[in-house]
Amino acid sequence: LDRQQATKFRQQFLNFHVHEQALIFVELNLIQRQRLYRYLTSAKVAAIFNELDSADVTSAYFKEMAPKYAAAVISAMYTDNAVDMLETAAAADLSTYLKYIAPKKAATIRKLLHYQAKTAGAIMATEFIKLTGDQTAAAAMQLVKLQARQAEIIYYVYVVDQMDRLTGIVTLRDLLTAPGESSVAQLMTSPAVSVKVDDNQEDVARMISDYNFVALPVVDADEKLIGVITVDDAIDVIDEESAEDYSGLAGVDIDEQKDNPWQAAFKRLPWLITLLLLGMSTASLVAHYDQMVSEASILAVFISSITGTAGNAGTQSLAVAVRRLADPEADRRSLGKIILTEILTGMMIGLITGLAIMLIVGWWQQNIVLGFVIGLAMFCAIIVANLAGSLIPLLMDKIGVDLAVASGPFISTLSDLTSVLIYFNIAKIFLQFIISD
Amino acid sequence: LDRQQATKFRQQFLNFHVHEQALIFVELNLIQRQRLYRYLTSAKVAAIFNELDSADVTSAYFKEMAPKYAAAVISAMYTDNAVDMLETAAAADLSTYLKYIAPKKAATIRKLLHYQAKTAGAIMATEFIKLTGDQTAAAAMQLVKLQARQAEIIYYVYVVDQMDRLTGIVTLRDLLTAPGESSVAQLMTSPAVSVKVDDNQEDVARMISDYNFVALPVVDADEKLIGVITVDDAIDVIDEESAEDYSGLAGVDIDEQKDNPWQAAFKRLPWLITLLLLGMSTASLVAHYDQMVSEASILAVFISSITGTAGNAGTQSLAVAVRRLADPEADRRSLGKIILTEILTGMMIGLITGLAIMLIVGWWQQNIVLGFVIGLAMFCAIIVANLAGSLIPLLMDKIGVDLAVASGPFISTLSDLTSVLIYFNIAKIFLQFIISD
Repeated sequence: LDRQQATKFRQQFLNFHVHEQALIFVELNLIQRQRLYRYLTSAKVAAIFNELDSADVTSAYFKEMAPKYAAAVISAMYTDNAVDMLETAAAADLSTYLKYIAPKKAATIRKLLHYQAKTAGAIMATEFIKLTGDQTAAAAMQLVKLQARQAEIIYYVYVVDQMDRLTGIVTLRDLLTAPGESSVAQLMTSPAVSVKVDDNQEDVARMISDYNFVALPVVDADEKLIGVITVDDAIDVIDEESAEDYSGLAGVDIDEQKDNPWQAAFKRLPWLITLLLLGMSTASLVAHYDQMVSEASILAVFISSITGTAGNAGTQSLAVAVRRLADPEADRRSLGKIILTEILTGMMIGLITGLAIMLIVGWWQQNIVLGFVIGLAMFCAIIVANLAGSLIPLLMDKIGVDLAVASGPFISTLSDLTSVLIYFNIAKIFLQFIISD
Repeated sequence: LDRQQATKFRQQFLNFHVHEQALIFVELNLIQRQRLYRYLTSAKVAAIFNELDSADVTSAYFKEMAPKYAAAVISAMYTDNAVDMLETAAAADLSTYLKYIAPKKAATIRKLLHYQAKTAGAIMATEFIKLTGDQTAAAAMQLVKLQARQAEIIYYVYVVDQMDRLTGIVTLRDLLTAPGESSVAQLMTSPAVSVKVDDNQEDVARMISDYNFVALPVVDADEKLIGVITVDDAIDVIDEESAEDYSGLAGVDIDEQKDNPWQAAFKRLPWLITLLLLGMSTASLVAHYDQMVSEASILAVFISSITGTAGNAGTQSLAVAVRRLADPEADRRSLGKIILTEILTGMMIGLITGLAIMLIVGWWQQNIVLGFVIGLAMFCAIIVANLAGSLIPLLMDKIGVDLAVASGPFISTLSDLTSVLIYFNIAKIFLQFIISD
């Protein structure tokens, strides 16, 4: 009976595209998953695991299997994906799996596990096709045919010298259209565009995107070819990094979808409470000017206008600065010039916004001094907010600190403080005119 | 002399990777560009244009050339890229160029120009390899070799029936490893995953990314195969759409890098002024409670704490909701369940943040009623802000309106208004206790 069921299940399940199989897989419970391991070969499970979304990648699945079956699945996966899954495995489990895996593959996995997260080494695959430049196109095509099943990428053949150093790249397109007897050295593009194993994954992904590559070779410190990064990994990296920037601007992990309300709340609360405490400094500043507010309660009316507008302006500067850092190719001006541009932009914005609110307040409250105070405060507050919004991310990047998770709310909360400080100090000077008017 | 110069320039320039050539090209001035057109063949210029960043794509370059040369460049480009560039061309110029272009290609360009922006049709290429299922693998390989030069993508061969309807896909990998006499129908994956010509470009890009495809076929309403979308276009779309979401959260076009300060300021000002005007309603609300603030100026102290925290919480909800809309696969729960989760999350966050500020204010001001008022106001303001942050994008999406450019600052400015309204109404109830204490 079990056998009949298995056959039926296999037929139906394997009819789905492997990406859809992966989508179904992550919805199964433990009992269903263990039945699936029993019904499917390790190669089919490996294909599913190759397709898992990065959020679903975990070594826990291997723990549910017999170690030998787990090892077979790991062996059948592309090394980069297997390494991603094994990253969370306990050392003891890892050793058990690797015991059952062919020594060469096991050694590669061990090596890849040592590369630092978020570098080229951590996302590269080791299944690629390479040969030396003295081969002919026909021999190269023969090699491609032989290795087509194992290689993660067959669209490029990498040319190396005797020391295994990368010297050029031949596309499968070129091999297909070239006369069989032409030498690979003639056909290849040289020097080859490549990245170093410790390069940042975001830079690598940007490069693949900018050059429209399907894959990019990775070399070690001695220029030896050790891996390739494929475009599907580059998309994941770009997506992940832009999600991080976006999360930073909002002060929340935007990939929290699968959390329940308690988990979501406890992920969002730390930043809200931190910012609330930081915001208390703004409150205590207002409290410090309590006497002035009692005398001229009209001052309280415009606190939120000034903090709100300066906060918005600061967030705009921040967003532009963060984008500039993410895509350095888009702007190759010097740091000084970039900052000068931001200051001038801030002054322009401050001037026009300040004039606007001066006229509005002057007309509404029939008090031109009050209008002038609000306008001047807004002018200064916006310039400060713009400078903070553009300088803070640039400085953090210069000293090598990654942007804080909540850079957006942090800038606007900081800008609340400086805006109120500027506002009350300007108001203090003109207080007698505001009241007497 | 000119000839010698040309040869030397060609040698040096063509040594760069074509992507680097494109980077150099966009930095040239008109005179340098026209020299370049003289020195390089139309095919080389076409290769450069194929590599242009979307921000640099413009038909103005064609206007600088002799129409015949422009036509030759257009002919040599991939159709999808040529169409991108021609989108901004005047009708008269377009007709002139198309006159010099082979009728079949000209017809394709005309057709592609009619597809709506941001749909699959607008980004698809028409250079692909197709055949019928009764062919052999050997015949298919022969076809690939013949068309390898023109096709934008050679890694997939598309199988169609007599009506030109897509029936399956064969990978080049399968063709390379299969016995030559096996039939294409046996080798192909069927049914083929495809998209419709009027599908949204973002959905198409997500599909390519999720399935790890290098290309995705596009069919018309009759299931006829009419184009392919390649992974490099998908990356550009994902990048562009995430930049748009990010811009929306910050209320600024983050790709403004190349603008000078005046341009940058005038791009940012419209939103700032709009939000300032919206913010004036908050100011007039505070003015409305002027009398109360005079009596208890301590109330003014906590305006910014409440508006700031509720604004942050609302922005968090907004960011999560926008992300959910961008990647529907990540969350397949019903709308009701999503909103229920947000309400519960908001209540949790409001409760804990409200309790925190109640204790802080109660201890700081030695006034537990004031603490309770602030805490309760924050609790209510956060729930409202969270609901607005999650509901507004979902509703706008439901009624088919694209998210506003400045959704982030809009939500926080709106939340300022509701927060102040909630705050003063709660304060009014307890006013006598706050003052008497």
